[in-house]
Amino acid sequence: MAVLLALPVADAAEPLPSWRSSAVKDRILEFVGTVTTPGGRGYVTPSQRIAVFDDDGTLWPEKPRPAGLFALPELRRQAGDHPQWVTDMPFRGALELGVKYLTEAPDADTAELLAAAFAGSTQESFRTQARQFWQSASHPRFEQPWRRVGYQPMRELIDLLRANGFRVFIVTAVDVDFTRAGAEEIFNIPPDDVIGTAVDTSAGDDGGTPVARRLATFATRVDAGAKPLAVDRATGHRPILVVGNVRDGGDIGLLRYSQAPARGRPGLQLVVVHDDFEREYAYTEENKATLDTAAKAGWTTISMRYEWKQLFPFQAPAVSP
Amino acid sequence: MAVLLALPVADAAEPLPSWRSSAVKDRILEFVGTVTTPGGRGYVTPSQRIAVFDDDGTLWPEKPRPAGLFALPELRRQAGDHPQWVTDMPFRGALELGVKYLTEAPDADTAELLAAAFAGSTQESFRTQARQFWQSASHPRFEQPWRRVGYQPMRELIDLLRANGFRVFIVTAVDVDFTRAGAEEIFNIPPDDVIGTAVDTSAGDDGGTPVARRLATFATRVDAGAKPLAVDRATGHRPILVVGNVRDGGDIGLLRYSQAPARGRPGLQLVVVHDDFEREYAYTEENKATLDTAAKAGWTTISMRYEWKQLFPFQAPAVSP
Repeated sequence: MAVLLALPVADAAEPLPSWRSSAVKDRILEFVGTVTTPGGRGYVTPSQRIAVFDDDGTLWPEKPRPAGLFALPELRRQAGDHPQWVTDMPFRGALELGVKYLTEAPDADTAELLAAAFAGSTQESFRTQARQFWQSASHPRFEQPWRRVGYQPMRELIDLLRANGFRVFIVTAVDVDFTRAGAEEIFNIPPDDVIGTAVDTSAGDDGGTPVARRLATFATRVDAGAKPLAVDRATGHRPILVVGNVRDGGDIGLLRYSQAPARGRPGLQLVVVHDDFEREYAYTEENKATLDTAAKAGWTTISMRYEWKQLFPFQAPAVSP
Repeated sequence: MAVLLALPVADAAEPLPSWRSSAVKDRILEFVGTVTTPGGRGYVTPSQRIAVFDDDGTLWPEKPRPAGLFALPELRRQAGDHPQWVTDMPFRGALELGVKYLTEAPDADTAELLAAAFAGSTQESFRTQARQFWQSASHPRFEQPWRRVGYQPMRELIDLLRANGFRVFIVTAVDVDFTRAGAEEIFNIPPDDVIGTAVDTSAGDDGGTPVARRLATFATRVDAGAKPLAVDRATGHRPILVVGNVRDGGDIGLLRYSQAPARGRPGLQLVVVHDDFEREYAYTEENKATLDTAAKAGWTTISMRYEWKQLFPFQAPAVSP
C-alpha cells in the first residue's frame, strides 16, 4: 500500500500538457516560477500579476473573423434598409464575398460591420445572441462550434496563470461584448476582465425596464496604438505578461508596454506565429514588423506547428511536428 | 473537552457585527440567502452576482471630498502658472476657500480640480501619490488617516458579499485612479473593479520607457445619468445589488437600473442616509429626490445613526442610537 502511494503521478500533474518540451515552455514555466517565489529577486505580488491576451489569432482562429461571421446574417437581413451598403466598404465586401471577405478583413472593418449590424439592440439581447453564436455557430473549415475552436494550449496557459495568482485579461480591437461571450464560454473569463472596442449606448426604456441600447457609433476604439492606454485605464496596472500574435503588427505596442519594467520587475512577451497550414493556417506579415521587433526586444515567439502538440480539443495530439 | 468544543461561538460568526439587529439587516441577510440557495426560487448564479457601490458618502465620508483634498496642494503649487484659476470656478473656490469649498463641492467640480492638478503626470506616478494620500493624509475633522475613515459596516458588507460569491464593483463620478487607491487600501478591491470618470491619457516616453501620461481633458465622465451605462459597459452585466447614498440624486439612475430584473431575478437597492451629526455628518437633499424615489420603489434606506453600531474602526461601538 505504501509503495503504491509512493508511485509517481507525473503525467497528471504535468503543466501545459499540450505544449512540447522546449525552450519556449521552459521559459514560460521559469517566468511563472520566478514571479511567484517569495523572497526571490523576481518576486511579484499577486496584485501586480496582470496578464493580458489578445483575442483573434491568439485565443482562437482569426480566419474567418468570428465577429464578422456573427454579423453577416444580420447584415444580409437588413441590407434592403441600407442602400449605401451596396457601394460602401466594408459592407459591400462582406455582402458580396461573405466568408471569403471575413477571412482577410482587418480588425477595424470587422468592428464596423458588427457595430452596424446590431445597432438598436439592447445589450442584453445582443449578449444572448453572442452567447448563442459561440455555443452553436460552426467554424466553416473545422465544422465545429466556435466554443470548441479555442486553442487548447492557451486554455492550459490561462489556467496555469490563474492557479499562480495572475489576473488574466483579454483585449480586443473588435467588440468587447462579443468577445466577452467567447471568453466566458471557452476560457471561463468573466466579462469585466475583457477590455476593448465598445459602441456607444443610450439609456432607453423597454416596457418600463431601463435598458442600454446599442448605437452604430463607437464610444472607444481599441485599435493597435490604443491598446496600452486602454489596458492601463481598465486595469490600473502595467501588465507583466502579454500574449499576442503575428498578423498586422497590432500587438507590438502592448507587448512593448509590458516590457518596460517598473523598478526592474520581470516581464514576459509571447507572440504566436501562425505557421501551421495543416492544422490551422499559415500566414505572416508583409513587413515582418512583429517578428523583427520580437527579435530585437527578446520576445518569445511561439510556432504553432512546433510548440503545440495539440491545437484544438477535437484534434488528436501530434506525435512530432 | 468535548463540552468545551460544543460551546457556542456565536459572536465570532455573527454576520455584519457593526450593524444593529433590525429589519434592514434582516433584509440584507435574507437577500444574500435567497440568491445563494441552489434550487431556490431566487437563486442567482455566481457569475450574475454583481454588486455595485457608489464611493463618496457610501464607502467613506464625502465631507470634505477626498479627491479635492488630494488635489488642493498641487493646485496651490501650480496656481502661479494658471492665472485664470484666480477667476474661474471651481479653481477660485478651491484656492480661496480650501477645505470649506471642498466640503460642499459637487462631484463634477471635484473631478475637474483633480484632472487639472495632475495633468502631465504619468499614471504610475499619479497612482503612487494617490496611495500615499490614502495611507497618510489626515481627515480634517476625524484627525485620522483616510485609510481609517472607510465605513466599518460597508467593509463587513463587502466581505459578506464576496464570501457569498459576489463580485463587488465601485463606481465613481470623480477620478477612477484616485478611487482605486482608496478602494484597494481600505476594502482590498482590485483596481480593475473600480469604474469611473477617467482623464484622457497620451502615450509618452519616459527615458525609453513607454508611459501613459494624464491630460486635463476627460475620456469618460461617469456622472449620475451615465452610471448605468458605464457599469453595463465595464462589467457586461446588470447588477443585482446597488448601494448608494442621499446627497444630490446621483445614484437614482443606477439604483433603478439594478431593479429592473431580467426574468424576475431578485434585486436589492440600499441607500445610505447621512443623519448622524455626532459621529459623522447630517445632511439631505433639498428636493428629496432620492428618498422619494426610494419610498416609491421599495428601496431600503440605511440610517447611519440607527442602523450602524460603529461607523469607523477608531470609534467605540455605540450602545444605543
